[in-house]
Amino acid sequence: MLTYYSFGPGANSLKPMLALYEKGLEFEHRLLNPAKFEHHEAWYKEINPRGQVPALDDDGKIVTESTVICEYLEDAHPTALKLRPDDHFGRAQMRIWTKWVDEYFCWCVSTIGWSRHVSKMVEKLSDAEFEEVVARIPVPEQQVKWRRAREGFPQEMLDEEMRKIGVSVRKLDDHLADHEWLAGGMYSLADICNFSIANGMQFGFAELVNTDDTPHLVRWIEQINARPAVKAVFAEVPREF
Amino acid sequence: MLTYYSFGPGANSLKPMLALYEKGLEFEHRLLNPAKFEHHEAWYKEINPRGQVPALDDDGKIVTESTVICEYLEDAHPTALKLRPDDHFGRAQMRIWTKWVDEYFCWCVSTIGWSRHVSKMVEKLSDAEFEEVVARIPVPEQQVKWRRAREGFPQEMLDEEMRKIGVSVRKLDDHLADHEWLAGGMYSLADICNFSIANGMQFGFAELVNTDDTPHLVRWIEQINARPAVKAVFAEVPREF
Repeated sequence: MLTYYSFGPGANSLKPMLALYEKGLEFEHRLLNPAKFEHHEAWYKEINPRGQVPALDDDGKIVTESTVICEYLEDAHPTALKLRPDDHFGRAQMRIWTKWVDEYFCWCVSTIGWSRHVSKMVEKLSDAEFEEVVARIPVPEQQVKWRRAREGFPQEMLDEEMRKIGVSVRKLDDHLADHEWLAGGMYSLADICNFSIANGMQFGFAELVNTDDTPHLVRWIEQINARPAVKAVFAEVPREF
Repeated sequence: MLTYYSFGPGANSLKPMLALYEKGLEFEHRLLNPAKFEHHEAWYKEINPRGQVPALDDDGKIVTESTVICEYLEDAHPTALKLRPDDHFGRAQMRIWTKWVDEYFCWCVSTIGWSRHVSKMVEKLSDAEFEEVVARIPVPEQQVKWRRAREGFPQEMLDEEMRKIGVSVRKLDDHLADHEWLAGGMYSLADICNFSIANGMQFGFAELVNTDDTPHLVRWIEQINARPAVKAVFAEVPREF
C-alpha cells in the first residue's frame, strides 16, 4: 500500500505524483497545507525528520527526496509504461537532467517563488507566531530561507537567481529545439522532473518563457500538459494553497 | 573501450575511479593537471563542454557527473561485485546519500579546500594571466569561485561552510555508529561517494574528524582504506597536483 505526502501538484511534490499517475499506481494521497506549516508538525517529522515534502510510504518503508522517489517507483513498482530509458547511455543522460533540476534549476525558481508567495504568507504572522513556526523547522538552511522570506531576500540574490533562470530556460529551449524529449528519445523522469519546475513559467515568468523567446520549451510544456495522466493530476488534485 | 578523465584520486574524480577499480574494469586513465588548467583547454571542452572532471568515454559515448558515471558503470558494465543494493529500498537510501554528497557535503568541504589550496595556486599568476584563465572557464558559477579563490572567500562564507562540515561529519558518525555501511547493509556507491569527500579529513580537519569526536566515521574511513581496490588506487594513481 502506497501513501504519498505532498503539497499538491507543483514543484517537487509534482514529480513523483506525475510518475504515480503515469504508471497508474493506486495510492492514498495525503495533502499537507504549507500555509498551516503542517510539514513541520511532529506527526509529519516522524515520517520525514527533515520536515519536507514529498515523502512516499510503501508498506511502512519511507522514501524521501522527490527524484529518489521517482527512481524508486521505477525500481519497486515496474509497469508496462517505463519512465526510464532501458538504454544505459540514455539513462545516464536522464540522470544528468534530473540532477541538474535538483542542483540548479529548482533552486533559482524556488527562491523567486518564495520571494513572491511565501513572503506574503508569513507577513501576516506576529513576531512571536513567526518564531514559533521557525523553531519547528528541523533544517537550519530552511530556517534561513523562512527568515529571508519574512525580512525580504537581498536584491543581489534575487538578481542572481533571475540570471540563473534565464540560463536555465535557454538551456532547455536549446536542447528541445532538436529533441522531442530531454533524454533517451522518450518521455522520461528527465521530462517529469524538469516539467514540474518549468510548468506555469509561461505565466509567472512570461518575459522569459514565451513563444517568441523559447518556442521549443513552450511546445514541450504544452505537449506534456496534453498527456492524459498530467490532465488527470491537475483535474483531481487541488492546487497548492 | 573505457577512457576515464580525472584529476587523480581525490574528491569527485575519486568516486568513479573507486568504482572502476572495485569492479576490476580495464580503462585508460587520462590525468589532467588542474594547476595547468588543462580541464579548461579546448580539447577537453570538446569532451565535457562544462570543462569539469571527471568524464568517462565509453566507446565514444561521453558520460559526465561523477555520481551519474558511478551508476552508469553499474548499469552498463555489471560485474560479480555489485556496488548498488538489489533491494529497492536500500537502493533508494543509497541514492539519498549520494545526492546528499553532491548537494551538501561536497560543497562545504570543497569551498574550504579551495580557500586553502586553489588560492595558493592562483596567487602566483599575474592579473593578465588570471583573466586569461578565467575567460576559458565555461561555467559562470565556476568563474566566480576562481575569482573568490584569488580575492579571498568572504569570512562569513568560510564560517558557514565550516558549520556545514561540522553538521556533515556529525551526521555521518551518528549513522555509522550503528551501521557498518551507509546504505542497504553493504559497501555501495553511498560509501564510495561519501568516502571520496571524507577521506583525509582526519588530517585536514583533525579538529572535527578524530577518534574522540567521530570514532565511527574514522573506523569507516580506515575500513574503506583497507580494501584492496582502494589500496590499489592510491598505490597506482598519482595524487592530485
